[in-house]
Order: sequence, then C-alpha cells, then structure tokens
Amino acid sequence: MPVTIGEISGEYVVIKALENGVTIFALTRGVDTKFHHSEKLDKGEIMIAQFTEHTSAIKIRGRVELLTKHGGIKTDD
Amino acid sequence: MPVTIGEISGEYVVIKALENGVTIFALTRGVDTKFHHSEKLDKGEIMIAQFTEHTSAIKIRGRVELLTKHGGIKTDD
Amino acid sequence: MPVTIGEISGEYVVIKALENGVTIFALTRGVDTKFHHSEKLDKGEIMIAQFTEHTSAIKIRGRVELLTKHGGIKTDD
Amino acid sequence: MPVTIGEISGEYVVIKALENGVTIFALTRGVDTKFHHSEKLDKGEIMIAQFTEHTSAIKIRGRVELLTKHGGIKTDD
Amino acid sequence: MPVTIGEISGEYVVIKALENGVTIFALTRGVDTKFHHSEKLDKGEIMIAQFTEHTSAIKIRGRVELLTKHGGIKTDD
Amino acid sequence: MPVTIGEISGEYVVIKALENGVTIFALTRGVDTKFHHSEKLDKGEIMIAQFTEHTSAIKIRGRVELLTKHGGIKTDD
Amino acid sequence: MPVTIGEISGEYVVIKALENGVTIFALTRGVDTKFHHSEKLDKGEIMIAQFTEHTSAIKIRGRVELLTKHGGIKTDD
Amino acid sequence: MPVTIGEISGEYVVIKALENGVTIFALTRGVDTKFHHSEKLDKGEIMIAQFTEHTSAIKIRGRVELLTKHGGIKTDD
Amino acid sequence: MPVTIGEISGEYVVIKALENGVTIFALTRGVDTKFHHSEKLDKGEIMIAQFTEHTSAIKIRGRVELLTKHGGIKTDD
Amino acid sequence: MPVTIGEISGEYVVIKALENGVTIFALTRGVDTKFHHSEKLDKGEIMIAQFTEHTSAIKIRGRVELLTKHGGIKTDD
Amino acid sequence: MPVTIGEISGEYVVIKALENGVTIFALTRGVDTKFHHSEKLDKGEIMIAQFTEHTSAIKIRGRVELLTKHGGIKTDD
Amino acid sequence: MPVTIGEISGEYVVIKALENGVTIFALTRGVDTKFHHSEKLDKGEIMIAQFTEHTSAIKIRGRVELLTKHGGIKTDD
Repeated sequence: MPVTIGEISGEYVVIKALENGVTIFALTRGVDTKFHHSEKLDKGEIMIAQFTEHTSAIKIRGRVELLTKHGGIKTDD
Repeated sequence: MPVTIGEISGEYVVIKALENGVTIFALTRGVDTKFHHSEKLDKGEIMIAQFTEHTSAIKIRGRVELLTKHGGIKTDD
Repeated sequence: MPVTIGEISGEYVVIKALENGVTIFALTRGVDTKFHHSEKLDKGEIMIAQFTEHTSAIKIRGRVELLTKHGGIKTDD
Repeated sequence: MPVTIGEISGEYVVIKALENGVTIFALTRGVDTKFHHSEKLDKGEIMIAQFTEHTSAIKIRGRVELLTKHGGIKTDD
Repeated sequence: MPVTIGEISGEYVVIKALENGVTIFALTRGVDTKFHHSEKLDKGEIMIAQFTEHTSAIKIRGRVELLTKHGGIKTDD
Repeated sequence: MPVTIGEISGEYVVIKALENGVTIFALTRGVDTKFHHSEKLDKGEIMIAQFTEHTSAIKIRGRVELLTKHGGIKTDD
Repeated sequence: MPVTIGEISGEYVVIKALENGVTIFALTRGVDTKFHHSEKLDKGEIMIAQFTEHTSAIKIRGRVELLTKHGGIKTDD
Repeated sequence: MPVTIGEISGEYVVIKALENGVTIFALTRGVDTKFHHSEKLDKGEIMIAQFTEHTSAIKIRGRVELLTKHGGIKTDD
Repeated sequence: MPVTIGEISGEYVVIKALENGVTIFALTRGVDTKFHHSEKLDKGEIMIAQFTEHTSAIKIRGRVELLTKHGGIKTDD
Repeated sequence: MPVTIGEISGEYVVIKALENGVTIFALTRGVDTKFHHSEKLDKGEIMIAQFTEHTSAIKIRGRVELLTKHGGIKTDD
Repeated sequence: MPVTIGEISGEYVVIKALENGVTIFALTRGVDTKFHHSEKLDKGEIMIAQFTEHTSAIKIRGRVELLTKHGGIKTDD
Repeated sequence: MPVTIGEISGEYVVIKALENGVTIFALTRGVDTKFHHSEKLDKGEIMIAQFTEHTSAIKIRGRVELLTKHGGIKTDD
C-alpha cells in the first residue's frame, strides 16, 4: 500500500502527566464518536500523540501540562 | 480506502473545563445542522477536538478556557 | 465518498455570548442567501463555526466577543 | 457534487453595525454587476460574509466597524 | 459549472468614501480596456471589491480612504 | 471558457495622481512592446491596475504616489 | 517501490535522557494502538524519532528533556 | 490560448527616472541575448516592468531610483 | 530510476562529538525497528545526517552538541 | 510553445556599476560551462539579470554594488 | 533525461576549514551506508555541498566552521 | 525541450574574491564526484553560481567573502 503524505502528517500534541493515573482517551473519527483507546500515564510520563485516520479527538483526565500548536495549557492544582 | 491529507488535517481546538459539567456539542456538517455528539467534561479535564467530515461546528456550555488559532478565550466567572 | 481537503478546511470563527439570548444565523451559500440555521447562545456559551458548503455568511444578534483571523471584535454595552 | 477547496475558501470580512439600519449589499460576480442580496443590521449586530461564486463585491451603507485582511476601518460619526 | 479556486480568490481592495459622489469605475480585462461598471458612493459608504474575470483595473474619482495589500492611501483634502 | 487562477491573480499596483493630467500607459506583453491603452487621471484620482495577459509593463507620466509590493515611491515636486 | 515525500517527511522529536533506564515506546498507527517497539536510553543518550507509517504515538517513561515543534518540555526531578 | 499562471506572474521592478533621457533596455531571453525593446523616460517618469517570456534582463542607463524584491538602489549624482 | 523530491529532501540533524567514542546509530524505518548502521565519532568530529527511506530514528551515545529544527541540545558533562 | 512558470520565474540579481568598463559574463548551463554573453556597463548603469535556461552562473569584473536574495555586497575601492 | 525539481533542490551546508587536512566524507544513501567520496580541505578552503541522490550523510574530520539551516557550529581548538 | 521549474530554480551562492588567484571548482553530481569546471577570480571579481543538474558541490580555494542562504562567511587573513 503506497504511503501518502496524509497518513503520517497529522498534527500532534504533547502531554506530560503531573500526577499518577492520568488517562488519555482517543475518540473515533467518523459518524460515531466513541473511545477506541485509552492510555494511562503516571507522574512525569509523557505522551506524544498524532491525530490519525482513527482518532479525531483526544480527552484528558487528570493533571497535565499540554503543548499544542495553539500554545500551552496546564491543569491547575 | 486510501488516506488523503484532508481527512486528518482538520483544524483542532483545545478546551479545558473550569468547572464540573461542561458540555461540548458537535454539530453536523451538511444541509441539516444538528447535534450528533456531546461530551461531558469535569473540572480540569481537557478535550482536543478536530473539525471533521461530520463536525463543522462546536458549541460549548459551561466555564472553559479555549485555545484556537485565532487566540485564546476564557469564560468569565 | 472520498473526503477532500476542501470539505473540512473552511475557516472558522469563535463566538462567545456576553448575554443571554444571543442568536447566530447561518446564511446559505448560492444564488439565494437566506437563513438555513439559527443557534441560540446563553451568556458564557461559546460557538466555534466553520464556513461550509452550505454556509457562506454568519449573522450575529446580541452582545458577543468574536475571534476571527482578522482580529477580535467585541460588542459594546 | 464534489466539494472543492475553492467553494468554501473565499476570503471573508467582518462588519459590526454602529447604528440601526445599516445595509449590506452583495453585488453579483460576472458580466453584470448588480445587487443580488441585501441584509439589514441593527446597532451591535455583526455580519461575517465571504466572497462567493455569486458575490464579488460588497457595499455598505451606514456606520460600521469593518475588519479585513488589509486591516480595520471605521466609519466616522 | 464547477467552481475553481481562481474564480473567488481574486484580491480585493477596500474603499471608504470621504465625501458624497465618489465614483468607482471597473475597467474590463482583455484586449480592450473600457468601463463596464460604475458605482456611486456617498460619504461614509464603503465598497469592498475583488478583481474578477471581468475586472482588471479600478479607477476612483472623489475623496476616499483606500486599503490594499500594499498598504493604505488617503486622498488629501 | 473556464477561469484559471492565473487570469485574476496578477499583481497590482496603486497609483494616486498628485496633479491633473497624469497619464498611465499600459504596454503590451509579447514580442512587440507598445502602448495598448492609456488612462488620464486628474489630481486625487486613484488607479488600481493589474498586470494581465495583455499588459506586462506600465509607464507613468506626471506626479504620482505609487504603492507596490516593493514599497512606495513618490514623484518629487 | 518509489519513494514519496510522505515516507520520509514525518515530524520528529528529540529526547535526551536525564537518568538511566528511560524507556521510549512506539505505539502503532491503525485500528489497534499497541506497543510495537521500545528503546532504552541511559543518562545523556539522545533519541531522534520520526512519526512513521507504523508509529503514530510515542510514550516516554523516565526523566527526559524533550524538544518538539510546539516547544520544549522537561521532566521535573 | 489558455492563460497560465506563469505568463502574468513574472517578477516586476519599479524604475523612477531622476533625470531626462533615462533609457531602459529589455534584453531577450534565449540563446541570444540582445536588445529587443528600449524605453525612454524623462525626469519623474516611472516604469513598472515585468520579466516576461521575451525579457530576462533589463539594463538601465541614466540616473534612476530602483525598487526590487532585494531592496532599493539609487544612482548617485 | 527517476529522482523525486522526496528522496533527497529528508530533514537532517547536525551532531558534533564532545568526546572520543561517540556512537550514532541509525534505526530502520518499517515494521521492525533495529540498528542498520552505526558510526563512530571522535572528539570534534561532526556528522550531518538525513532521515531517509531506510532511517526513521537516530540514537546517540556519548557527549555531543546537537542542532535540529526544534533547536539545539547539548549533553551535560 | 506554452509558457510555463519555470521559464520566467528564475531568480534575478541587481548589479550597479561603480566605475566605467564593468563587464558581466553569463556562463552557460549544462555540461560545458563557458561564456555565452558579456555585457559592458559604464559607471552608474544598472543591470537586472535572471538565471535562465541558458545561464546558471554570472561573473562580474569591475567595481559594482550587488543586490541578491542573500543580501548585498559591494566591491571595495 | 528530464530534470526534476528534486534533483537540484537538495539542502546544502557550508564548511570552512580552520586547519590543514580537514576531510569531508560523503556517505551513501540506501541500504548500505558507506563512504563514496572524500574531499581534503586546507586551511581557509570552503566546501559547499548538497545532499544528493547519492549522499544522505556527511562526516567531517578536522577543525571547521559549519553553516547549516539549523544554525552555525564551530569546532573548538 | 520544455523548461521545467527545476532547471532554473537551483539555489545560488555569491562569492567575492578578496585576493588574486581565487579558484572555484564545480564538482559533479552523480555517482562520481569530480571536478568538471574551475573558474579563476582576481581580487574584487564576483561569481554568482547556481547548483545545477551537473553541479552538486562547490569548492573554493583562496580568500573570499561568501553569501549563502545560511548566512555569510569570510576567509580570515
């Protein structure tokens, strides 16, 4: 299957957990929007995640520092 | 199905809930504009959501901090 | 139906209601320009809306703060 | 009908009425340049309008604040 | 007729009349350069006009404030 | 005849006459370079003109203020 | 197999280990999101890794300094 | 003959004559480089000229002020 | 085999060894991620390396100064 | 022969002679690199020259002021 | 063989030798990474080298000053 | 033979000789890297040279001032 520029050029965000038990949910692209993956982060762990053919939204539960192309955001204590 | 650059390159916005019970509504693209998905956020939870083939508008109810390509906006107390 | 870059890459604007009862009207693209959708916002609610195949103009009634690629604008008291 | 990037990527301008009875006229693209639509704005109402397949000029009567990609302009008292 | 990016992406200029009786002339693109449309503006009226398939030059008679991509220009008293 | 991006995307310049009787000459693109159009401007009149399929050079006689993408230039007294 | 621009133009991130035993996990692109590779770094070692046809997310465990296109981030002690 | 983006998008330069009798020579593109056009400018006259299918070099004799994309240059007295 | 823009336009990084015995490992692109090349640098030697069809990750062992498009990074003593 | 964007979009440089007898040599593109044209400039004359299908290098003998996209350079006395 | 934009648009770096006997090694693109060319520079000599179809990495031995798109780097004494 | 954008859009560098007898060597693109052209410059002479289908590296012997897209560099005395 040929690789196109689309498949690997999705925007990404950077998430650093500020506490144990942070959960990152990937929500499905398409008619139905539901969780298709969740990832647990402990304090200090970092996740770098792209939007993909399967993921069009990301939900974060727990205290994090977040870097995006629109700037950074941090969960307050 | 080949992946094109269009499908994953939609703009995204970043929404941080400043209180419990924030609701994010995704509105359908197309002739009819109606809710096709809603997502509840509790205080401190973050949602990163793209415009997609199915979503051309997003409505937010509840106090949030919002990051977009046109700058940030924050709901007053 | 293949997704092209056009369909999801429309510009968007961000509208925050500064009072109850703000109304956002979407006007049709095409030979006739008429309302095809209206959305009510209460104070503090936020709408993020793209131009689409069906919407080429947006009219806002009521006090709002607006973010666009040409800068921000705010309705006076 | 497939959607191309052209149809929804027209430039837009932002118009805020500074008095009641502001009128926005859309003029036809093509050999003949005539009014094909007019929109009334009362004080504080905002119009966000794209150039489209049907509109290649916009005329504004009444006091407004205008945002465009070339900067802002404001009608004097 | 399919809409291409060309048709609606012409550059535009913004003209604000500083006195009554300002006239804006659109000149034809093509072998012959002649007036094909004129528009009268009274004091305070604003015209936002694109270059189109039919218009490759614009002539302005009367005192105006003009915004273009090369900057602004204003007619002296 | 389909409209391409080329036809309407030519660069433009802005010319403001600083005295009566300014003449703007459009010179032909192609093997022969000759005048194909001239336009008279009186003091305060403004001309906004694109390079086109037919015009690859512009000559100005008389005192003017000129805006171009390389900056502005003004005829001295 | 011809090489396209997509295959080698994936974004990359830079990770410097600040302690021994840092682990970098590559997560699979596609319907299932699971680990397909892990890499151990000792203190001072650096990893420069692209998103690829096979990797759409990266998870980091251990103290690191991270450089991305959205800025830098550092794990606190 | 269809118009392509190439034909009208050539770079242009702006030349203002600082004395009478300035001569602008257009040199031919192609195997032979020779004069194919010359234009006389008197003091204060301005020439705005594109590179074209036929012109790949421009020679200026006489005192001028010149605006180009690499900046401005002025002939000394 | 025709050369495409992809093949030679891969991003590159610059690595300067700050001590003898620095090792640079190139890791394979594709389903398996393993070492396919290693390069030894002595103090002061510089390596400038692209991502390629075969290399999607680079690992560095030893003290270096590194220049990337996300900025510079230096191994501490 | 249709005109492509390539033919007229070559980069150009601006050369002002600071003394009489400046010579500008155009060197051939291709397997052999030899002079195919030379142009004499007297003091104050200006040459604006593109790289073309036939010219891939330019040599200048004599004192000049030179403007390029990499900045300006001036021959010392 | 037609020339494509790829072949001549490879990034280049600039290397100035700060001592005699600097060696620049070009390493092969492809499955095997080995030296295919080396170039000796004496003090003050400069090499400007592109990445090509054949070269995807460059190794430098000896004291140099190096200019790249990520900034400059200099070998210490 | 049609001219493509590739052939004339190669990057160029600017070299000013600071002494007599500066030599500029053009090295061949391709499997073999060898000298295919050399050019002698005397003090004050300037060479503006593109990378081409035939030249992928340039070597300079003698004292020069060099302008490139990565900045300027000057040979010390």
